[in-house]
Amino acid sequence: MTITSAILVVGNEILSGSTQDANIAFIAKRLAARGIQLSEVRIVRDDEAQIIGALNELRAKYRYVFTTGGIGPTHDDITAECIAKAFCVPHVVNAEAKQRLEEYYATRGVSLNEARLRMATIPEGAKLIDNPVTIAPGFNIGNVFVMAGVPKIMQGMFDHVDTLIEGGKPVLSKALRCNLREGDIAAELGAIQKEFPEVDIGSYPHMFQTPSLSLVLRSADEEHLEAAAGKVAAMIHAHGEEPQ
Amino acid sequence: MTITSAILVVGNEILSGSTQDANIAFIAKRLAARGIQLSEVRIVRDDEAQIIGALNELRAKYRYVFTTGGIGPTHDDITAECIAKAFCVPHVVNAEAKQRLEEYYATRGVSLNEARLRMATIPEGAKLIDNPVTIAPGFNIGNVFVMAGVPKIMQGMFDHVDTLIEGGKPVLSKALRCNLREGDIAAELGAIQKEFPEVDIGSYPHMFQTPSLSLVLRSADEEHLEAAAGKVAAMIHAHGEEPQ
Repeated sequence: MTITSAILVVGNEILSGSTQDANIAFIAKRLAARGIQLSEVRIVRDDEAQIIGALNELRAKYRYVFTTGGIGPTHDDITAECIAKAFCVPHVVNAEAKQRLEEYYATRGVSLNEARLRMATIPEGAKLIDNPVTIAPGFNIGNVFVMAGVPKIMQGMFDHVDTLIEGGKPVLSKALRCNLREGDIAAELGAIQKEFPEVDIGSYPHMFQTPSLSLVLRSADEEHLEAAAGKVAAMIHAHGEEPQ
Repeated sequence: MTITSAILVVGNEILSGSTQDANIAFIAKRLAARGIQLSEVRIVRDDEAQIIGALNELRAKYRYVFTTGGIGPTHDDITAECIAKAFCVPHVVNAEAKQRLEEYYATRGVSLNEARLRMATIPEGAKLIDNPVTIAPGFNIGNVFVMAGVPKIMQGMFDHVDTLIEGGKPVLSKALRCNLREGDIAAELGAIQKEFPEVDIGSYPHMFQTPSLSLVLRSADEEHLEAAAGKVAAMIHAHGEEPQ
């Protein structure tokens, strides 16, 4: 059975186009390596109703939900509070998180003021996700994993998340590249897809690139993957090219 | 009144992490320049139920919906068909689209076979969106604008879309950069945000960069934007730095 998941990205900076998201592709690859399907992604504004609405839909629908963004010390960081509301639990200072921040800041001569204490304030009952980069932790509540938006910090947190989630059979992939036109092979490719429903076959044309077409096959079933890839290779050959 | 919008990205290749999306940031910037708020983004698989479900939610909720991906000639291109189903209209060959493809392919000695004809098959009543790159058009039905996933083609199509949508008052932005720590200025920054509810103030720390903190202000109201930016600059100055 497929283990499904979703990512919820929180942040006006992505929706205004001023920041190019780098977290989706990173998490997507790590999930694929664990045999977990990334089924959906949503990007919402720093808006309470939007965050709570999207989170409640996604956590009901998918096995795991990963969020990025909105857990810093400033006024626009409202993710933790929204998640407490979505789960209908109090939003409280976590003693362990507070202690980690105290120790970290003490060695740096930085005061643990009210703003920084917000980074230790999480939904009651949530477990901490380690942050090896800047200490302020993420957290896990139910099937939801809450991480920072800064890519380097999120990546550090994901190493911990990776140990908390159950994986499935890894999805294997095989890419065959050629310079054929999609329209010339679409019917044959569709027939191969029909023959191998366990294999997910995608066709991706590229502009200004050689080879100009990638045919990508994915499946958790290696035997079917190899058989389908063999048919795609034979088809490319029959059109006078060799798959690359 | 805010003109709202959403993007629906269709494509397994984004969710598997094999392709880094480049369309969201492009469309986001173009919408911002037109004074249209990008309120939400969803990325879904090449899956009929997911596409139809997301599209119907988004088109009911926002003024405009822009989709990318899934309108090519291969079996995994199911966006046009799903949109016809979402609008409960037949999915039919569009005479004008067919003629454009015939003329384009005739000059290239390429046959307009059944697979390619799918690219002229769109929801009944939809208007064509010009594709200056590879001719096969996108389309507009209701408040939904359907574009290709290949960035170069999508960008060409967006030039036409841009003429079909109503803009609002452009959102102006101002970024002030410094090396202060977020936690040291969070309270003051929050107070400035409270004083200027018409201005959207975001705080974005960067790792391994100097300056290490960007404070970004956005508003359609230039006077308030300048006043808030002045206060942010004064706050940075009071902390012993000059805004960059």
